[in-house]
This record gives sequence, C-alpha cells and structure tokens, in this order.
Amino acid sequence: MAIKFAARMENIKGSAIRELLKLTEDPSIISFAGGLPAPELFPVKELEEVTVKVLREDGRAALQYSTTEGFLPLREKIVQRMKKASVECMPNDILVTAGSQQGLEFSGKIFVNEGDIIICESPSYLGALNAFKAYQPKFVEISMDEDGMIIEELEKALEQNPNAKFIYTIPDFQNPTGRTMSLERRKKLIELAYKYDIPVVEDNPYGELRFDGEILPSIKSFDTKGLVIYLGTFSKTFCPGLRLGWVLASPEILTKYILVKQGADLQCSTIAQREVSKFLEMYDLEKHIENLIKIYRKRRDLMIQTMEKEFPAGVSFTRPQGGLFTWVTFPEHMDAAEIMKKSLEVKVAFVPGQSFFPNGEFKNHGRFNYSNMPEDKIVEGITRLGKVLKSMI
Amino acid sequence: MAIKFAARMENIKGSAIRELLKLTEDPSIISFAGGLPAPELFPVKELEEVTVKVLREDGRAALQYSTTEGFLPLREKIVQRMKKASVECMPNDILVTAGSQQGLEFSGKIFVNEGDIIICESPSYLGALNAFKAYQPKFVEISMDEDGMIIEELEKALEQNPNAKFIYTIPDFQNPTGRTMSLERRKKLIELAYKYDIPVVEDNPYGELRFDGEILPSIKSFDTKGLVIYLGTFSKTFCPGLRLGWVLASPEILTKYILVKQGADLQCSTIAQREVSKFLEMYDLEKHIENLIKIYRKRRDLMIQTMEKEFPAGVSFTRPQGGLFTWVTFPEHMDAAEIMKKSLEVKVAFVPGQSFFPNGEFKNHGRFNYSNMPEDKIVEGITRLGKVLKSMI
Repeated sequence: MAIKFAARMENIKGSAIRELLKLTEDPSIISFAGGLPAPELFPVKELEEVTVKVLREDGRAALQYSTTEGFLPLREKIVQRMKKASVECMPNDILVTAGSQQGLEFSGKIFVNEGDIIICESPSYLGALNAFKAYQPKFVEISMDEDGMIIEELEKALEQNPNAKFIYTIPDFQNPTGRTMSLERRKKLIELAYKYDIPVVEDNPYGELRFDGEILPSIKSFDTKGLVIYLGTFSKTFCPGLRLGWVLASPEILTKYILVKQGADLQCSTIAQREVSKFLEMYDLEKHIENLIKIYRKRRDLMIQTMEKEFPAGVSFTRPQGGLFTWVTFPEHMDAAEIMKKSLEVKVAFVPGQSFFPNGEFKNHGRFNYSNMPEDKIVEGITRLGKVLKSMI
Repeated sequence: MAIKFAARMENIKGSAIRELLKLTEDPSIISFAGGLPAPELFPVKELEEVTVKVLREDGRAALQYSTTEGFLPLREKIVQRMKKASVECMPNDILVTAGSQQGLEFSGKIFVNEGDIIICESPSYLGALNAFKAYQPKFVEISMDEDGMIIEELEKALEQNPNAKFIYTIPDFQNPTGRTMSLERRKKLIELAYKYDIPVVEDNPYGELRFDGEILPSIKSFDTKGLVIYLGTFSKTFCPGLRLGWVLASPEILTKYILVKQGADLQCSTIAQREVSKFLEMYDLEKHIENLIKIYRKRRDLMIQTMEKEFPAGVSFTRPQGGLFTWVTFPEHMDAAEIMKKSLEVKVAFVPGQSFFPNGEFKNHGRFNYSNMPEDKIVEGITRLGKVLKSMI
C-alpha cells in the first residue's frame, strides 16, 4: 500500500522544540528549552470563580455553538487591550483564534501560493515557519541587529522579490532573539510596506511583558492603509491552556481570516471565550501582568548575570528588555547541537538555533528561556553549561 | 491597493448555513436551519463540578501548554468509546482535535493537491465540502438511496478517477439526508477501498444518537489494512462549545494529522480535555445519551408525523433512524431558495439543499433539523410550512 499524500506534506516536519520538550519532561533536567510561561503564576483560583459564574449565569449558551467571529464582549475587551499597542480599533476588526499560532497558519493559507516569498527576520519563530511551510513558500531572511530587522536589507529584498506575499515580523522581544525593533525602524517598515504594497504580519505575543522602559507603539498603530495584520494572544499574559488569541485586520483582509476559521474549526471554544471575558470584568489583568513582569525580570537578570559570569569569552548573548528568551551566539566553528548533547549529559537543556533559520544556515546559536525555571535552577543550569562550554572551547 | 491573496481563496465561500443562522437569531422565527443540539440538555451543573475538581486537583497543568496528541487519560477514554463503533484501538491511534470539523480540514490539507478528486455522497455535509475546497479539489458525487451511497456508482467513479485521493462518507444518519449506510454496503465499501488502494474518511458525529434498532459497526471496524480515517466528536453527545473531537487512524496516516495539528494551533485546550476526561470518570455519559435519544426521538417522530399530515402530495422526506436531520425533496420544478423566502414570511426557516451538492446541481431539496426545537414549535412550524407549500404547488 502506498498512500498518496499531498505534495505539501513533504514540507511539514515536526517542530524540533516539541520533540525536545518530550525529552525534557524528565524533572531532573533543568530546561531552558520550552517557551512556557510560569505555571505557578496562573490565576487558578480566579479561573474557578469565573467558570462557576459563567456556567450559572448562562451555562447553556456557554456550551453551545456560537459565531465564528468570536464572543462580542470578549472582542470589545480586546479592543481596549489594543490601546496598549497604541491601536484604535472596533470589535468588528477582530477575529478570535486558537492562540496566535492559528493566526499564523491562516496567514500562510490566505496569502501563499507554492513558490511565493515570505520575508522574515533571520532567525524567526520556528512555529510560524513550520506553519507557513505547509503552503510551500520560499523564505527570504533579513539580518537583524540589536534594533531588529536591518531596513536596508528589507528594502533590497522587496525590490528583488516582486512575488513576496507578506513580511512576517515579531517586533517586541522577538522569538528567538529577544530583540526589539526600534521605533524608527517600525516607521520605516510601514513606509516600505506602502511603497511595495505588501501586507505585514505583526506577531506580538510578548509585547505586554516589558521589563524596562515604555511599551513601543506597534507597527499596526502607524498603519493608516490597512496593510498590517496584528496577531495577539492571551497565552503569555493569562494562560496558554485555554488556546485564545486574536487577529486584528482591515475588513477586506479579516473577511478571509473569518472564512478560513469557519472551515478550520467553526469557532473557538464558547466557554473559554466567556471565561476570559468574565475574568477581564472581575479581575485586574494589568495587575497580574505587573506581577509576571516582576518575576520574569528577576529571572532574566539572573540568567544574564550568570551568563556574564560563567560563559567563556567568545560566547555572546542578547539582553532582552522583555519577553521570555535570550539568544546565545557560540563561536562560529561550534555546532549548538553538539553543545546540546554535552549539555544534556549534565542535565541542562536549551534549543539549538539552526531550526529558527528557515533556510538552515547557522548552527552556532541557541535559544534560552528564563520564564519557566525558578531562580536557583537558572543559576545552577547556566553554571553547569558554562563548565561544559569552557571544556569545549 | 490590490492585496494578492492565494489562489485557493477564490474557492472559499462562507457557509450558507452560518449566514442563515444569523437571520434566525430572531427568537420569533421557528428555525429548523441549524444543526444545533438541544441546549436544555447540556450537563451544565455537572460541568461546573468537573471544572472545579480539575482546577483544584492540578490547576497549573490544566492551564499550561501540553502535548499536541492530546491528554492521555482522555485518549484512553476515547479508546473505550470506540468500542461502541466496534473498533479496537489504542490511545496512540488517537489525536484530539477541535471538533471533527478540524479533522475534516486536516484531511483536505493532508491528501489533496489542486485538481485531485474527492469522492463523496450526493448530497454531503456542507462544512466538510467548504473545508476541502480550500485545497482546490474536484468532487465526484455518488448518488444515494435509502441505504446510503450506491456502491456500483462508487466503483465506476473509482475506476474512472485514478487521481481520487479519498472517499468521504458519513455512514450514520448522514448530514444532510439522515440516511444510514447498510451493513452490506459498509463491507463492500471497504473492499473497494482495498481494491483501489484509497483512504476512506469516515465522519461519524451522530452515530451514537440512534433512536431505533442497533448501532451498526463502523466502516473502520472492518479495516484491517489501516486505510480508514475515523472522525469522532463530543459535540453532539456532550456539548459543542468545548470544541473537542478526535481522529483515529493508522500510525503512518495519524503522524501526518499530528504534524498538521502542531502547525495549526499546537494543541487543543488543555483544560477542556481534562474536563471531558473528568466528566467521563464522574458521570455516566451513556445515561446522558439515552436521555438525548429519548427526547430527539420524540422530536423526530413529531416532525415526520406532521410532515405526513401537512405537506402536500409531491413532497417527500427521509425517515432517519437517528441523528439530527431529515431531508425533504420538493417537486423537481421547485426551487427551495424560493420556498425558503416564502417560509421566512411566516417565520419558519430551514436550509435550502443546493449547497450540500458540491457541484450545485439540485435545487429542490431542504435540510430540516429537529433536535433544536421544542415539540410545540415543531408542529407549528411544519404546519405553517405545509400551508406555504400547498399555496405554491
């Protein structure tokens, strides 16, 4: 028997991270591999209260089918939240999705014919790249510095690739690098999007988790022509287990996302949407986020300080102003997969960086998550890895 | 500005039903249009208890990311449920999905290249057809009689279409016709699948809601070669608002569904999976289903009896042994869309049948749902429609 799958399936590989996560379920391993928020901060008690209320007030509606677009009171509250990203919008501009991951997958489906170009940061979020790959695009990677995508390179890429379908960017505390695009570059990016008439997919799961300084205006906030598609999520500010995020886009574009959502799974969980909406009425999410920031900031500080102290010369790393990750660059001749092997021997895990490059060129990087490990384990894990690195260099 | 969408988007249209549902939100309308289960039967109180328990026992895990495959204890319980369909399987054969709708969408993605053939019943489930259309297939429709797909026609189609990628069938109380495939035809269908080496997507959302006689063995139960992909759901036996269903398939095929799920939305809601699993531990779902059957059977009986009494000669309808729908055939010269217009004038709604035919040939049918309306409204609505029909014939 030879089952004939669609050609696109040859492009779809498992996420190296998800495979790694299985390895690191062993509790004796200190894992910087995942992108998980800290579960000890989840509002478990509050969610219980909220659920009881939702079920008692209108349990039947909460368990029934509802509209594809999403629960209106929740969309109204998302409109309010978008002000933090300096965006003015209306509930009808918003579609509720199963995390921002679903918005990413839809973006591939809606825009990409086989062979089309997606322009993205180099490196970029693995889960997005994998979702896009199902639609058989080619990737043009734009180098980054500490201020995000290098704009001159972006312009060259736009000039040379008239079949580019969209620019994919994570401007705030990027996954995997932790870097943030500067205000100036955000403005230049939107200018280029207009000049080349190309949509921008702005993926912003971490923006509200800023430890230092002020939140920068989103790229969407500068968009007067409706070319920016903004993806948001409750996974990092509330909890990921409910699988709720959103797409914000202009009507012509959002219509396509709604149609695709209908075919994909009809709608998001009715009760989950009502729970988050009720939570936002009953509790102060801002206060919860402040608490997250306080704890994650401390974890970042500890990780960076310990890296400064324990990593040998020749190993560098980013200093994120928020989010969940720092990006480590090893000497060019080193292969992070080899380092990971030795690192696992001392029970420390991280994600080797190669799979974050859609064309797979660079092997000497690693992504380190600090949000999911307690402080003592951060110090212990980075110290152990420091020893491994010293022995290898 | 001219945004360049992917070619597939030209194929994606809104579901006529979902648009209709908006019309029928007016509570003064008696609607047979939706495919909604009766909300007054949802286990609201039980779900409250279950949620409190899940959150108190392991709230942090319930709100965190988890595996793509799904919560193992839930998959173990699905294995048990599959025995009702005469299937022996293992938890690793199962992927938890966002309703069976997601399993349908994935089937298109996994198997269909542009121009490939999907073989399906004529008529077939609109939501499946819409999900498949994103992958630009052609549809070959197989006529049905009261015993389901006509097997001779299926064999001819398989012979003539070597690029057919799968057979899509809803063997039990089919949507929209309410018809059930006979045992003999199930066996012949699997023989043909083997002969032509073609996968079968067996969609079974209603199978457990049988009002008369015994549940027939699923097509999957005859499958020794792993060619049948079985889609199940909790939407009709428990509640649709949680968005939980499953795919059961052989390892080679299931691997593809898992990879696609990872890109699509990473995983289903962690807490929803734990809630359903806990419900199945604490309560007797069989008893709940018995109750559903008792009430839906009465509603079906009333709808059929009233149709027999009130519809004029020349109008026929199916007599489903379970599920949610009956399928009405109007005289050939009549257009159901026209009937629907007049019907709405007397505040009665149903779904005109044309969109259930993927190639759109037949206009003289309508789908009627009886699960979502109380008994008096069923009698009143069908009686009103009977008058409309008499005036038109």
